[in-house]
Formats: sequence, C-alpha cells, structure tokens
Amino acid sequence: MPETTAPTIVVVGGVAGGMSAATRLRRLSAAAKIIVLERGEHVSFANCGLPYYVGGLIADREALLLQTPESLAARFDLDVRTRAEVVGVDAAQRTVTVRSADGTEYHQAYDHLVLSPGARPFVPPLPGAERALTLRDVTDVDRLAAATTQASTAVVVGGGFIGLELAENLVRRGVSVTIVELAPQVLPPLDPEMAAPVVDELRAHGVQVETGRQVSRLTPTTAVLDDGREIPADVVIMAIGVRPETALAASAGVTIGPRGGILVDDDLRTDVPGIYAVGDAAEKRDGLTGDQTLVPLANLANRHGRHVADVILGEGGIARTVRRGALGTAAVGVFDLTVAATGANEKRLRAAGRPCRVIHTHPSNHAGYYPGAEGMSIKLLVDPDTDEILGAQAVGGAGVDKRIDVLATAISAGVRASALADLELAYAPQFGSAKDPVNMLGYVADNLRSGRTRSVQWHELDAVLAGGGQLVDVRTPGEFAAGAIPGAVNIPLDELRARAHEITATDVVVHCQVGQRGHTAARLLAEITDAEVRNLDGGYRTWLAGRTATSTP
Amino acid sequence: MPETTAPTIVVVGGVAGGMSAATRLRRLSAAAKIIVLERGEHVSFANCGLPYYVGGLIADREALLLQTPESLAARFDLDVRTRAEVVGVDAAQRTVTVRSADGTEYHQAYDHLVLSPGARPFVPPLPGAERALTLRDVTDVDRLAAATTQASTAVVVGGGFIGLELAENLVRRGVSVTIVELAPQVLPPLDPEMAAPVVDELRAHGVQVETGRQVSRLTPTTAVLDDGREIPADVVIMAIGVRPETALAASAGVTIGPRGGILVDDDLRTDVPGIYAVGDAAEKRDGLTGDQTLVPLANLANRHGRHVADVILGEGGIARTVRRGALGTAAVGVFDLTVAATGANEKRLRAAGRPCRVIHTHPSNHAGYYPGAEGMSIKLLVDPDTDEILGAQAVGGAGVDKRIDVLATAISAGVRASALADLELAYAPQFGSAKDPVNMLGYVADNLRSGRTRSVQWHELDAVLAGGGQLVDVRTPGEFAAGAIPGAVNIPLDELRARAHEITATDVVVHCQVGQRGHTAARLLAEITDAEVRNLDGGYRTWLAGRTATSTP
Repeated sequence: MPETTAPTIVVVGGVAGGMSAATRLRRLSAAAKIIVLERGEHVSFANCGLPYYVGGLIADREALLLQTPESLAARFDLDVRTRAEVVGVDAAQRTVTVRSADGTEYHQAYDHLVLSPGARPFVPPLPGAERALTLRDVTDVDRLAAATTQASTAVVVGGGFIGLELAENLVRRGVSVTIVELAPQVLPPLDPEMAAPVVDELRAHGVQVETGRQVSRLTPTTAVLDDGREIPADVVIMAIGVRPETALAASAGVTIGPRGGILVDDDLRTDVPGIYAVGDAAEKRDGLTGDQTLVPLANLANRHGRHVADVILGEGGIARTVRRGALGTAAVGVFDLTVAATGANEKRLRAAGRPCRVIHTHPSNHAGYYPGAEGMSIKLLVDPDTDEILGAQAVGGAGVDKRIDVLATAISAGVRASALADLELAYAPQFGSAKDPVNMLGYVADNLRSGRTRSVQWHELDAVLAGGGQLVDVRTPGEFAAGAIPGAVNIPLDELRARAHEITATDVVVHCQVGQRGHTAARLLAEITDAEVRNLDGGYRTWLAGRTATSTP
Repeated sequence: MPETTAPTIVVVGGVAGGMSAATRLRRLSAAAKIIVLERGEHVSFANCGLPYYVGGLIADREALLLQTPESLAARFDLDVRTRAEVVGVDAAQRTVTVRSADGTEYHQAYDHLVLSPGARPFVPPLPGAERALTLRDVTDVDRLAAATTQASTAVVVGGGFIGLELAENLVRRGVSVTIVELAPQVLPPLDPEMAAPVVDELRAHGVQVETGRQVSRLTPTTAVLDDGREIPADVVIMAIGVRPETALAASAGVTIGPRGGILVDDDLRTDVPGIYAVGDAAEKRDGLTGDQTLVPLANLANRHGRHVADVILGEGGIARTVRRGALGTAAVGVFDLTVAATGANEKRLRAAGRPCRVIHTHPSNHAGYYPGAEGMSIKLLVDPDTDEILGAQAVGGAGVDKRIDVLATAISAGVRASALADLELAYAPQFGSAKDPVNMLGYVADNLRSGRTRSVQWHELDAVLAGGGQLVDVRTPGEFAAGAIPGAVNIPLDELRARAHEITATDVVVHCQVGQRGHTAARLLAEITDAEVRNLDGGYRTWLAGRTATSTP
C-alpha cells in the first residue's frame, strides 16, 4: 500500500473490542496509522479477572495488565494514549477532540473512527450512594481491594454475574456478605427453578441472599433495605448492571438504538460515515428474535473488534461467516458451582408470547461407576413446532460449561433438538457417558416431539391435582420417605405392572427423582391403562427447585 | 396393541447396543415379548470401566454390573437369559437355536431378530499366544485382575485406546509395563506429531514404549520382540484391536460388508428380512467419505440400539434425524493427559488423496491470568476448497474433551472452519478465554482461507531450507537459547520492524513458540519486504513434536 493512502484509524477505548480492533488492523496493514485513545489509566486489562484479584485468587496485580502502551507500541506499532479522553467528534471534518491528563485539549484527525467506550456500572440515585463502589477497571479494583482489607461486612447490590463473583471473592477475603437483588431470583439469565441451587450454594458459603428486595438508602455503616432492615455494610458495591457509554456517539450525531446502545449494522457501521462501534456500548441483534439487544460480554466484544478491522481494511475480502445475531452465551463460577446459559430463557419466551417446550434433566457429568462423578441440572427450551433449540441453561459441577458450549454450537448451527441424540461426543468414563447428557436431551426432545411421551411442568402440577388428577411417585419407598410431593401415592416403578389397578384417575402424572424412571412409568401406564399419563418433567428435583424458587423466604 | 399381534423380538447380545434396543423396545411396547440372549455371564456391564477395575480406581466389582437379569425383568419385563449362546439362525422359519449353559439346545421363535454380538479382541497366532490375556467382559477382567496381583511385569501388545488404559491401570497396580505397538506411533486415530506428547506422558510414568515393533513369540516369562529383545512379562495382554463377531450373521445368510462387519442399511436392517444388527459387529458409514467403516465405540452402539427399536416398533413415526454416518469421536485419559479426536486424521486424508489444510494450535484451557491454566495442542483438518471441517484432534489437560465435543458438533452440523470464529462459547476466566481455543481455530482458518497468511507444516520445513529459504525465529533470545530449529536466525518479534533488512531471502518462514507471534510477524514481513513469507504452523512446539514422532528412538 503506498504511503500516501495509509489511513489514520482512531480507536476510542483500549480494552476488549477496541484493542482487538487495533491489533487486527495492524495485522492487516503495516502502514496504517493506528491511534488508541483510552480515558482510563490502563489498556488491555483482564476485566473478567478483576473480581478474583479482589479475592486474592489472582495475587499478582501485574497479571491483570495483559498489555501496556509500551508493549503494544513495540509489537504492533500502535500509538496508545492513556488518560486521553475523547470529548468531542467532528464527523464532517473527521476529527476528534482529545482531553489529556493535564486538561489540555487537542484535535486528532481520523479516516475511520472505532468507538469502543464500553458500558459503565449503573448507580441508582440513593441517599448515601456516593459511598458505593463499582467495579469496571483496574483503578476501581485497587479502590475495592483497599476497602476490602478494612472491611468485615459488605453489601453487594445486584445478584447478576458480577455481583455473585464479587460475593464469592469477598467471602474469600473473610468478609461477611449480603447480596440484595430486586428480582425474585439471582442470575437473571436463568429461570427461577434453575437459579434455586445457586442461592443454596451462596447460603452454604455463608452469604446472606435477599431477593425481591432493594436498598433504599445507605448510611455510613449500613445499607437500609426497603423493608426497613439495616444490613451492616463496611463496603457497598453496586453491581446492578451496566449502561452503554453513548454520550460521545450521540454528540457525533450517531443514532442510538431502541435499547440505549449505539446502533450499528452487521458490519459494525453506525449511520455516520466513517464511524463504527463495537463492544458493550453497541447494540447487538438477538440471534433468535432478531430484536435489538445489549449483550455486555467479552467474547462478542473481541469478535466484533476483529470484524470491524476486517471491514475497515478488508477491501471486500471479508469472510461473510459472521452471524451478528447474539446468543449471549455466558458462564459464571459461584463457589463450587458452575452456571452457564445460552440463548433465550423461558421467562423471556413467555413474555414474548412464544410457545416453548421445556425439558429438565439432572445427569452426571460422567459415568457413575467412575469415581468423582458430579451432578448437574440442565434445562432445554425447544420450539414445539419446529423442534428448534431456543435456549439452554445448566447448573452444577464439572462439565456444565462443556454441555452449554455444545448446545450453543448446536443453536448457532441450527441443529434441531431431536438431533442432539445423534451428536457423536467424546466418551470415556472420565469425561462423559455413552449417552452423553446432550444426547439424552435429544432423546427426551424426540419423545416429546413424536408424542410418545407427554410431560407436565413443576408449576403446572397444582392445577392437575386440583382438577382431580392422580400423582404417582414411582421412586423407592426410601426415596419417598425422605421427601415427597404432597398428594403423591408411592408405587415403585418395579411394582407398577402388578399394581396398575391402583391407577384410578383418568388424568395421571407420574414422577421419579429426575424424570428417567418416570418416563418408563409413563410409557408403561399409557399402554396398560386407559388413563391420560404424563411425566413430571425433571422429576422431584425440578419440582423441589421450583418450589424453593417461588416460596417466600 | 391387541395381544395377538404383540411381536416376539429376540436380541442377541446383552451389552450396549443390545440392551439399549431391548429397553427402548419395552418403552415403545408394553406387550412385546422381548428376549435377550447373552452368551456370557453378565449383561449390561460397564465395559468402558473394565480397565479401571484392573487398576483399582473402580474398587467395587458390583459397580461394573449396571443391571442384572433380575433387575431388567422387574423394571422392563425383559426375558434376559445369560450363558445362552445362539448357535444357529433359521431365517426362513424365524427361529434361533440357543445353547444353554448345560449344553442343551432349544429353538426360540422370533418376529424380529436384533444382532448385537459385539467384537472380540484379536489374538495373533504367535508361539505362546495361549497365555496372553484379553479384555472384553467381566469374566476377562476377573482373570486379568487376578493375574495382576501376582505380576510385577507386563507387556501390553497394542498402543490403542484400550492398550493405553490398561498400561495406566497396571502402573497403578505397581506393575512395570511395556507397550509394544507395530505402528510407528501410539493411538492410531491421532497423527504422529499429536501422539508424541502421549508417548512422553507414558514414559514420564515409567511405561516403556516400543513403537514400530511387534512381539514375535511369548515365552512363559517374557515377550520376545521382532528385534530379538526379550521383555520380562509376567502378564501379556493383547489389545491390538477387535474383530466383529459375524459368524452367526453369516450363517443366517446375512451379507458381510467390505470391512468385515455385518452390512446394514441406515435403519440397521441387514439384507435378510427380520434381521437387524447394531453395535461393534455392524459396519457404519463414514460421515465424511460415505465409505463403509468399523467404529467400535459405545456411543454409536447405544444410539443405534435405540434407533433399531424405533425402526422395529415405530410404525413410521420415527424421527428422520439420524445421520448414520459416523465421525468416530472418541476420548481417552492417559495418566494426566486427555486425548480426544473426531472425524478424519491427516494420515487417512493423505492416503485417500484428499487435500487438506492443516492447523495446529497450542492454547490454554482458560485465561492465563486465572490460576491453574493447563495447556493443550489442537489439530484441525479443513477442506481447502470448501472450508469444511474434516477432523480434529486434541491432547492436553483439562478442557480437551470440551473442545473436541464442540468441534464434533460443528462437523455434524456442517459449520465451516472459518465460522468457528463466530461461535459464542461460555466464557469466564475459569472455563475459557474471551477468544476460546475453538474461536482461535476459526481465526486461523479464516486467515488461511482468505490468503492473508500462508503457513508451512513442520514436515515441509527441511525442503524450504534446502531450497535456500530463510527461517526466522521471532521468539525471545531466552526462548531461542533454550532450544531452536537448526538453521533459524533469531529476530524477536518486537525488533522485526527495525531489523527487517536482515531478511535476505525471497522465501521466508517465520516461527514462534506456538504460531501466534509468527502470524503477526508473517503479516508484517509480507507487507514491508518483498519476500514470500509463511508462518510455521503450530510453531516450535509442533515442529518439535513432529521431529520427536519421526525420529528413530
């Protein structure tokens, strides 16, 4: 490329999306002038690692700083300027106004402008909120780590991913933690019955969890809840969500989307020529509904950062493989639990009036006869008309992230739910089962799709019983005695043939512990009785989780 | 279904495929008469767990026996007969001749006959071979466990999955083990450079590995190799592969396929009416080439067992989601290593004359800044014309099975290699990276597909150097000093711009440790010099593994 045509590309924001764009730009062009303007003190830091530095699990602060302006200059010939805030854009002249650390301002010309300003933690305007901390960057984490060394109590406002990671890490520091969450459950990407074990895990590690509550004000030593209770809080952290940084984009005349993020097309172009946006500040298109959405996740930020570089310098050679539609696949560790989800949840589908078939299973991560098997719960959401997979959630021990990654891949590729049975997954007794949990989801989906089995959900059971239905618990007497659903009669599966005459209702629900024996029982009774028989999806375990999730604490 | 039309279904073989068929048949029909005839003493045992019982990791023998004839009768109303060998089939009359444990014979009528006789370990006709043990069932494992308690030395003939699992478990018992493998490498599903770390792992745990060798005879206390060496061997185990049990099928007039297994169609039907076959005895169709193949893996046996039940009793209601084409996805643990593979390997593709693009990477299983990251090596094979993924292999620590499962899903669904970049995988620093190893494979594939980067393989390097090419090692001086490729000049990546004048050849290969810095270097030199620049795929690490794999020990 001749020197005279080498473009100047200015990237606003030097983390995740911005830095992915900058380094990719350099790999595409040795000649381009690439300037990264970062308002904060650091670029390219490990933002997803920040909570673990608070907890001391990541002991070395330097480990968070993946790159420095110096290392980026040496390796990628990038002009990285920190404490350089872009305070204005002249889109017609293609210049930005930059405010330096010393308060002076200067103009920087660009040919292409990539906005990657991210999103800021939302702090509600509560009395006393000025003492609340947030966690976004290395400066924040320094402040939080310092405060934590003095603290014996903390209130974390918000039970989302960051809030739970912070709670775990504060516990690791010996701090007594209360999580306050406005919603009736923690981890909004999950449905309530899937979030129930997460609350159990938090409580088992001494975390107090207040769902359906909000903080109404902060005193210097407490957080006051909306029911009047005062929770001791040497430290208060706001982790109730983030808001896209759009002020700069808006000032440049860029259209802001319906969800409050920067509106971009499939190639990350805004509607102002020469200006692009990536990362948490930019809206995404939902992969299932096509609606605009916000997905503040690192994987999409990095992906889109790379893609915008291809768009700017690709000269038409870009691979058209990108699905801009976002599934929002995410994972979080909560003490010894792994939680992961992809696609839509049932709450969202119901709210949108979209019908869905629901499947709960409770498999082990690997063959039960091999030592160390850990349990998990999986929920699969399926379009009842097309068999399309709409979403999945999983909670448990080892292997949760693997199953969600396989399901996220299946969703992206359009694999139908029944066809999950056909996936050939790597099996040895340490790693899975000959019928992997993902295959089993396919079997269940196929049974429901074909009408061979009908199921009933945990929240539908009361209505069945109220309508004169009969509930048959096919577990062993020992399991029944240890805890049963009110109104159930116990006929162990292996006695069901002999005792089929005890089935007296025309509307029968059978259940076992997790749903598998129930399936066999439902098939049997459907053949040898005249009753309408359904299997309680996910068995006693899902019913119990659902009841826990919906009961008032 | 009226009583009079209830069919009698005879299943030959009561493990994996056979038992999956029998239990599924029962769930589809309460009335069918289902008879399982098993030649051995046990049904439904955990055959993939057998090696771990030898090692004592599975301590309880009962844990191997997942079901008994009694439990299967109680739960599934199955007529399970052990020590019942089917010695003849009259396909015209639809009867089988069964020999009982006491030697008496009787006829059993059937409407449908499902053959699931499995495959038997192959024992070559060596002098002394009669003292060699094999491992197929619970009776075998009892014999082997008893022999192991007396043994201090063992020779395992065969370096495949079972051989390596047995070696590990014999070491666990304190036995000194030698593996003898005819091929120049262990684990034939892998390519040689991917198998090299497996040999390192075996040797690090004290296992002697003799590749490219065979046992020519056995003495009462040794195994004599073809080079004359005598290896002490209190126990000798033959694990060189299995042969489909086809005698019964052949005697019934069923056609045997080109690979020596029972020939079946996509619905597991043989060419004799009323006779079906599943499991290790039946041939599969290769998912990539469409050729007939043998895939003795539990996941396919179970899947096909269920499918044949649907075919027999489904009455047209079967989901047509089955891809009978087999990828042969498999995993094995070798001490602290996990090895997994799916689809075709390079050896097979080259032998078939099929062009392929090869990608090696060496990522960590999760973010490097989070403690406990473990490394792995991945190899991806891609069709250079269509970007189709043809196969994948991975060797390393935690997370290997996850990546292969995602890639197996991608292959099944037809996801193109470049599109792996777009998969949204679950990321938190404990579980992955914002750019997951699978995404990174997509980035590399996209760079190669678009021609932005060209690569050279480890085995092509000698020819490049012999032709006057220049090899530039862009690692740090410290890395270079610790071990370098002969003929390489060291220009660290961060000095490459300033020292570009040292690039004097027109044919240049750059390399780093794993390929990533090499990519940046290749892109840079391609822009600022006139040389043809290629990146050494997989870097120094793949080159070293390849050299190890091909050097004579």
